[in-house]
Amino acid sequence: MKEKIIVDAFGGDNAPLEVIKGARLAVDQFSYDIILTGSEETIKKVAKDNNISLEGIEIYNTTQVITMEDSPSSVVKDKKDSSMAQGLKLLADGKADAFVSGGNSGALVVGATLIVKRIKGIKRPAFAPVMPKSDGVFMLIDSGANVECRAEMLEQFGLMGASYMENVMAVPNPRVGLANVGVEDHKGGDLQHEAFKLLNENKAINFVGNIEARDIPEDAADVVVADGFTGNIILKLYEGVAMTLMGKLKGVFKANIKTKLAAAIIMPQLKKFKKDIDYSEYGGAPVLGVRKPVYKTHGNADAEMFKNAIHFAVFYAKSGAIEQVENTMASKNISK
Amino acid sequence: MKEKIIVDAFGGDNAPLEVIKGARLAVDQFSYDIILTGSEETIKKVAKDNNISLEGIEIYNTTQVITMEDSPSSVVKDKKDSSMAQGLKLLADGKADAFVSGGNSGALVVGATLIVKRIKGIKRPAFAPVMPKSDGVFMLIDSGANVECRAEMLEQFGLMGASYMENVMAVPNPRVGLANVGVEDHKGGDLQHEAFKLLNENKAINFVGNIEARDIPEDAADVVVADGFTGNIILKLYEGVAMTLMGKLKGVFKANIKTKLAAAIIMPQLKKFKKDIDYSEYGGAPVLGVRKPVYKTHGNADAEMFKNAIHFAVFYAKSGAIEQVENTMASKNISK
Repeated sequence: MKEKIIVDAFGGDNAPLEVIKGARLAVDQFSYDIILTGSEETIKKVAKDNNISLEGIEIYNTTQVITMEDSPSSVVKDKKDSSMAQGLKLLADGKADAFVSGGNSGALVVGATLIVKRIKGIKRPAFAPVMPKSDGVFMLIDSGANVECRAEMLEQFGLMGASYMENVMAVPNPRVGLANVGVEDHKGGDLQHEAFKLLNENKAINFVGNIEARDIPEDAADVVVADGFTGNIILKLYEGVAMTLMGKLKGVFKANIKTKLAAAIIMPQLKKFKKDIDYSEYGGAPVLGVRKPVYKTHGNADAEMFKNAIHFAVFYAKSGAIEQVENTMASKNISK
Repeated sequence: MKEKIIVDAFGGDNAPLEVIKGARLAVDQFSYDIILTGSEETIKKVAKDNNISLEGIEIYNTTQVITMEDSPSSVVKDKKDSSMAQGLKLLADGKADAFVSGGNSGALVVGATLIVKRIKGIKRPAFAPVMPKSDGVFMLIDSGANVECRAEMLEQFGLMGASYMENVMAVPNPRVGLANVGVEDHKGGDLQHEAFKLLNENKAINFVGNIEARDIPEDAADVVVADGFTGNIILKLYEGVAMTLMGKLKGVFKANIKTKLAAAIIMPQLKKFKKDIDYSEYGGAPVLGVRKPVYKTHGNADAEMFKNAIHFAVFYAKSGAIEQVENTMASKNISK
């Protein structure tokens, strides 16, 4: 049976054109079935204007769009007929295998939680981007869905993150670390103390203890567990420092005619370097803890990245990661 | 009158040799008087073995050394005769204008608080490094002294940070921002909500509101206020991402003979780039909120950096920053 993926045609800075292009690529390269949610009229017009065939792509007509400025709760309140809300509803109703959006992350988490619904026993779904490190990738969970957390939530983040990295990203026995202000067991505040204890005692988690932020980019762990406030700081600073350094590096190469020549010589390696460290190259972040695969791609995603995100969402749907978390929760292999 | 600075001869990875060299440079270049604390025998031997004159440098003999592994409280408990504890005591007793150490940050904060003592009205001293951004520097306060904070402490951090940046770093009317998960006023948890209100209402603070971690390296504010947990994550991730990227960049230049040639062409600009982004180049971090200037330099500081730290400590001592905070606190120009 062919995999069927719902894609929010109006999520992201480059929607709907790049989304439609990405869907086209996914159909052509992987033979997936795609449902695009959004204004049928606009989608058809943009496709026609850009000579993109919609063969193999269904359109599910909706009348609203959630913007980056809308509040997260709009997805279940005044924007119930948005491309995002209706896409999530189609997923919840079993019309497809996964949902992909490049839109408002806060709304996506709220919608996933309230429309697709939580896995039984999971306290709070988490937003969990897969990010580059010096070699390979790691998952940062939670990176902003839950600004205030209890220790039990952090334990569940570790469990869900490890299940994803193992089943979807093929990392064997993923190392789970707790983001903290030092590596010693007693570091941090009350939340970290309690979370350390729960993560350490959970037999289903390969817990490597506290990790310092300094070591995250080098390979401190495969899954970095944090409350959503700390995780959001890490996510955004990671991107900010990398972008500022790349900006300054450009200045180095443009300094004079000699350095411009050197830059030309080195360009192929520099392009690879840029790709290696580019957070957006990795396509996205699952919303973990809900019953079906909900996958967020970068807000500035282009067609290639939408295609990658669709592909990853299929991996996720077929991986058994959600079922594993369901089984673990059902067998109470988690405290409480 | 000549400025007199106490320097912990046994603080930092390269102590005592680089500390002694740094003290020598400070005497020769700036004509400061220096008191080195630590084993007189060892200091004299190392100076002799390396042909360093101790002219203009006093030695205050102590029998203990606080290591990086010692607990912060050791400075007032079992290591009262350490080079750090005695240096702080000399400062408290008015024997010099400032104290500089490259040693254990936790111990330095505890020692500064309990030996030098807090400014009246200041709840908790903070560790406040001056860090590089895309253009110039900013202060991160608190970056680890206080893992759990109340909102009032964050307000005081803003006040102290602004006073330092204005008086010592010559930044006019420093912009103070609160590290948060978004720029909107309502972002964050209870701590951020309350701190936002206090910072916003305080007339002595040029508060620019919430800032996202992504914007910190670009120039979001001159003073970034955070609880010590968040600040420590920012401090260490900043360093970690920069180091990992520089490591990967080295790989780019070493890829083949052509790229090595390009690297040679570009070397002078690259060196400047590295210097611009190097956190340790900036020499250090004051412990703010105590009655006299206590200045921490980087753990791996070399002679040049010790010299710079001594120079900055003198700036700090002469700047009036401490007196300004004392006056502000005395005039109750701060809530409560």
